[in-house]
Amino acid sequence: MSALPSPSPVDGPAAPASGSAAAPSLRHVLGGATRGLLLFGITPPRASATAEQADEIARLTLARLDPLDVDALVLYDIDDESDRNPDERPFPYLPTMDPAVFHARHLVGWRRPAIVYRCVGKYPEPQLRDWLRTADTDRMAGVFVGASSGSKQVHTTLPRAHALRRETRPDLTVGGVAIPERHTRGSDEHLRMLAKQERGCGFFVSQVIYDVDASKSMVSDYHYACRERGLAPQPVVFTLSVCGSLKTLAFLKWLGVRVPRWLENALRHADDPLAESYEQCLATARELITFCRRLGLPFGFNVESVSNRKLEIDASVSLAARVRELLDRPPC
Amino acid sequence: MSALPSPSPVDGPAAPASGSAAAPSLRHVLGGATRGLLLFGITPPRASATAEQADEIARLTLARLDPLDVDALVLYDIDDESDRNPDERPFPYLPTMDPAVFHARHLVGWRRPAIVYRCVGKYPEPQLRDWLRTADTDRMAGVFVGASSGSKQVHTTLPRAHALRRETRPDLTVGGVAIPERHTRGSDEHLRMLAKQERGCGFFVSQVIYDVDASKSMVSDYHYACRERGLAPQPVVFTLSVCGSLKTLAFLKWLGVRVPRWLENALRHADDPLAESYEQCLATARELITFCRRLGLPFGFNVESVSNRKLEIDASVSLAARVRELLDRPPC
Repeated sequence: MSALPSPSPVDGPAAPASGSAAAPSLRHVLGGATRGLLLFGITPPRASATAEQADEIARLTLARLDPLDVDALVLYDIDDESDRNPDERPFPYLPTMDPAVFHARHLVGWRRPAIVYRCVGKYPEPQLRDWLRTADTDRMAGVFVGASSGSKQVHTTLPRAHALRRETRPDLTVGGVAIPERHTRGSDEHLRMLAKQERGCGFFVSQVIYDVDASKSMVSDYHYACRERGLAPQPVVFTLSVCGSLKTLAFLKWLGVRVPRWLENALRHADDPLAESYEQCLATARELITFCRRLGLPFGFNVESVSNRKLEIDASVSLAARVRELLDRPPC
Repeated sequence: MSALPSPSPVDGPAAPASGSAAAPSLRHVLGGATRGLLLFGITPPRASATAEQADEIARLTLARLDPLDVDALVLYDIDDESDRNPDERPFPYLPTMDPAVFHARHLVGWRRPAIVYRCVGKYPEPQLRDWLRTADTDRMAGVFVGASSGSKQVHTTLPRAHALRRETRPDLTVGGVAIPERHTRGSDEHLRMLAKQERGCGFFVSQVIYDVDASKSMVSDYHYACRERGLAPQPVVFTLSVCGSLKTLAFLKWLGVRVPRWLENALRHADDPLAESYEQCLATARELITFCRRLGLPFGFNVESVSNRKLEIDASVSLAARVRELLDRPPC
């Protein structure tokens, strides 16, 4: 694991950023979740990319994000999840650059916080500990992701990764993954969220959401379970990704995303599935904004594109801009 | 089965009703399903009611419905469905008056069409045939309901009832039941609907809807299956019922209605569950109106109260008025 850049000046929750010089700290960003956060998720370049290629990808990414008022950038840690699903992966798995390395070496122009995913099973403990030690706690958070299946061989388990954080770097904010589809199957995802919160998770990010009902049920159960236990609920960030083709739809399903039958029909029969899914993502955002505000649950959205097709990436940028507008609009 | 009143003057689809003298025929009403139908469902008085009591109940019912612009009245045929569910029925089962008898003898002041349910298993063939022979095909439709479980002993099966109609009274419009919860379990309710349509069903009425997503998936699959087969889809009427208490919620669940977890939480934690469910029924209506109009599927709503509590019945009348407003509003 590479060394990360040295911390930039701290500006805590009491000193919100203003102007271009003072970028908001991560804690300040998470404190804004009552109003609704906007994150943008990207996948690092392929592991085989040269430094020049990675710089160029970073430059293009920052140019895309420049007009957007995004609270934080999410950097995924891609793992070979072929154990997740015996079916053929609709898009091939390609190893990618370490997200922390891409952030530290190439995304130096990004002044806002970054949220770096860690598929913890990939990393032996010393490597994870090194990263924890060097992480800039003001400008960075982690999201710890467990194994994609129970049978997978791992270097570090999810509970052990959380323990390492507590031992090594308790001031680093980490988030956890929340999966509405698991809630539909077992009605217990809110209990997993509570267990992760107990281990130190300060926020949650969902996998891609196409089943709004399941998402509402998961956060509703989480909200009432927190209330019952006298705990403050942590922000829940819903991931939105457009779907511009039947191949992307197949990939979403391969990833474990449940697409309601009516929506799958609409995408399959649409003249323009990208436009259809874009409208659906907006409808999802509207419904979840209303729902979370009514519950009083801190929340946000993470907009990404699960495919690397230009049309879908452009649509995700446009979607993020529209979601920002929805979040900024005063509640009706 | 009693004789029914003699037919009133016919006014077919080409001659819409206007003024108070000419009431619309049933065919005309069903022809309006592209815009959206509004039905109101009631349960006949107890079988033990005297003629005077039944007259008084009919008078109160008509007074309640008078300000509403309801397209047709739905009269349920209540069956002992204790075979459906081994759990105790939250509201006791009480035998009720035959809906056709209540309609013919007591609801004489109702000038619009009536839709009379028939739990066909309750009736020996000759009794069902007598009713079919005497039914006023202009002012009345039937809805044939099959057994509430596979193990129930029946006098007449659903396919046999449909055959009897074709033999005896092919000009009587009959509808069928459509159950989104079955679609969630087996993904095949649309095929059952197509089979019923083949046997002669001219419309469908759902059981009470609290799971909008499942309802959308059912009618989406039905719509595309019709399109694939070159069939005209028949109107699908969604039943809405408010829920004013946890006992009513328990009864809805006993009846087989799936209430999404987030909605159950909202009802359980609401200061006023009746107001909460009322708003939810309206949101359901809005969403299904938009969805069906976009698909181009003829549709409607049937508003009822599964409980006989006055507050819930009053709320269902008010809900029907609001749904009428939603249906009359030009599409955005």
